[in-house]
Amino acid sequence: MITSRHLFGPGPSNPYPEATDALARPLLGHLDPAFLAIMDEACEMLRTVWGTANARTLPISATGSAGLETIMMNLLEDGDRAVVAITGYFGQRLAEMARRAGAEVETVEVAPGEIVDPADVERALAMKKTKLLAFVHVETTTGARQPIEPMIAAARKHGALVAMDCVTSLGGIPIDIDAQGIDAAGSCSQKCLGAPPGLGPITISARAMEAVQARKAKPHTWYLDLGLLFQYWGETGAEKKRAFHHTAPISSIYGFHEALRIILEEGLEARWARHENAHDMHVRGLDRLGISLFTPAANRCPTINVIAVPSGVDEAKVRARMLERGVEMSGGLGQLAGKVWRVGVMGHNAQAERVERFLGALGESLRT
Amino acid sequence: MITSRHLFGPGPSNPYPEATDALARPLLGHLDPAFLAIMDEACEMLRTVWGTANARTLPISATGSAGLETIMMNLLEDGDRAVVAITGYFGQRLAEMARRAGAEVETVEVAPGEIVDPADVERALAMKKTKLLAFVHVETTTGARQPIEPMIAAARKHGALVAMDCVTSLGGIPIDIDAQGIDAAGSCSQKCLGAPPGLGPITISARAMEAVQARKAKPHTWYLDLGLLFQYWGETGAEKKRAFHHTAPISSIYGFHEALRIILEEGLEARWARHENAHDMHVRGLDRLGISLFTPAANRCPTINVIAVPSGVDEAKVRARMLERGVEMSGGLGQLAGKVWRVGVMGHNAQAERVERFLGALGESLRT
Repeated sequence: MITSRHLFGPGPSNPYPEATDALARPLLGHLDPAFLAIMDEACEMLRTVWGTANARTLPISATGSAGLETIMMNLLEDGDRAVVAITGYFGQRLAEMARRAGAEVETVEVAPGEIVDPADVERALAMKKTKLLAFVHVETTTGARQPIEPMIAAARKHGALVAMDCVTSLGGIPIDIDAQGIDAAGSCSQKCLGAPPGLGPITISARAMEAVQARKAKPHTWYLDLGLLFQYWGETGAEKKRAFHHTAPISSIYGFHEALRIILEEGLEARWARHENAHDMHVRGLDRLGISLFTPAANRCPTINVIAVPSGVDEAKVRARMLERGVEMSGGLGQLAGKVWRVGVMGHNAQAERVERFLGALGESLRT
Repeated sequence: MITSRHLFGPGPSNPYPEATDALARPLLGHLDPAFLAIMDEACEMLRTVWGTANARTLPISATGSAGLETIMMNLLEDGDRAVVAITGYFGQRLAEMARRAGAEVETVEVAPGEIVDPADVERALAMKKTKLLAFVHVETTTGARQPIEPMIAAARKHGALVAMDCVTSLGGIPIDIDAQGIDAAGSCSQKCLGAPPGLGPITISARAMEAVQARKAKPHTWYLDLGLLFQYWGETGAEKKRAFHHTAPISSIYGFHEALRIILEEGLEARWARHENAHDMHVRGLDRLGISLFTPAANRCPTINVIAVPSGVDEAKVRARMLERGVEMSGGLGQLAGKVWRVGVMGHNAQAERVERFLGALGESLRT
């Protein structure tokens, strides 16, 4: 009934088989000491992957989008101002989440494939007192990677907090939350981390949490209220007292825990190098097929390859042929629909034999 | 590393083994036609379980709490008035969600174990134009079951929509959304439905959706925005065009689909009878142990048994002894902490041999 696929879209990627198997472990209660120990371990491993000592680091009990909404709904309220740097659909989404949280939003937007000039962000920040600068690290729709440091520098200069969407980067390329000075970040379980979809890992700095605690009004959400969430998860692994908030998605956390264990077993540096190598192999293969990436070379990221559909090619037909071969890749979103393919080389899929499988299938599917 | 438990708390209950196994099926993409077919089938089966033809019936990609928040955040906005009938913690939670959605909230609250008098609800509705009446069908903290029909009648008389939390009832006792005239309902995956936790099934009537579409402002949430969600899930199984919204928790939906399949294979009436029988056996067994239920007989529900802790018994110690035997039950929440045990007899656990296992363990654990 269920077909097996090579998932080379922008996510989900194929999870580690061990993470998939872990989903089927016997269910524990959400307040069972044995489960609380698994939660604590998962949070601790997640801190390592993110390069942070932030006590407030956990997977939100919903998908990656909800993790980012958690950040926006807690850090922003009516009367706050946010500047959002937009390099594509997911930046627009951050801006929309900020508006719904009640903030006045100033956007700095560039054409697809481009990255935002920090000088433009600075100008936007200088206009008016701003609480939060939000940006997407790697924009899944265009493949563009926004350098982190200049964004942080701009925000610091103007006293703003910084939130980063690292849905398509965490676990695939270096991120160092504490050293880089990022106040809040959100990712997902199903891309470079190699777990199934369903969780939205977030990390919140002490500075960001102070801002949450200084809110004038409660957040508009109960489910994603950070104050309530941390009462259940515990702010550190050492904190023993926990209050019921919601029933955690226990099976998903088993899978997430297992993926994180494998990540740390491999080691972060080895992992980043593996993603880099898989990307290089992928680009070489595309080159042999006479195909190039849409994203300008300077802005590319190994994890997501946004390919320019060659002229004269029926892009939807090629994707359908790929799927018949059991290989998924995705089309463009929004203004890039019909113009690009999006190919994720992430997590468990960022390895030679899988990239070769993809390239072989693409070569066959391009034949007219 | 992971211990197996008999989960007799108020949820999660032990899922069907087939549902647990389904979690580990090979991952499909969230827009893969093969996955969209599974989504459609799951929604169709969910409609049957709920007794509704509502096109807008789906599992929210987060836990049951988020399903209820979806209802409150979409049906209510600034300036709306809601009346919330409160029989315990989960009613208070509905009221809190309504407030966070921006509504002015009038509550009608009773003592633990009691149910709300519809005449009091009518009085609250008559005070001022009210958009929504919300109530909990079966209050998980007290075991009290609020009869549905009088609540609907009161709401209809005053032109209010009705939202119902049926987290601890759906799949265990009769619910008939369309015949009863319920406008919006939310449940969870991990109790009477026999799937693992992680999804929040909801159903929304056409009348309720008209109210959502007539909102003055967008909901404060992007992730739980019904308009956006239905663009992805499709408003009916027949609708072919789908827009990306978020990456569905694919594995969880496999498990949910499998649990629904087993439910319909058993048949709803047979299932309700099974829950009734398991409850009777449970109460007989408690009686033999000299223990009685906290909830007044007239207000009881088969799915959740709230037990009065016998005087002189160290309730936490008994729970700890039960857990050592691999059997989980829960203590009381809020003002009932220390006074009651909460024992769910739900889904796959509502069967003779499992109830006997529970009773045997309780008998042993009560020995001093």
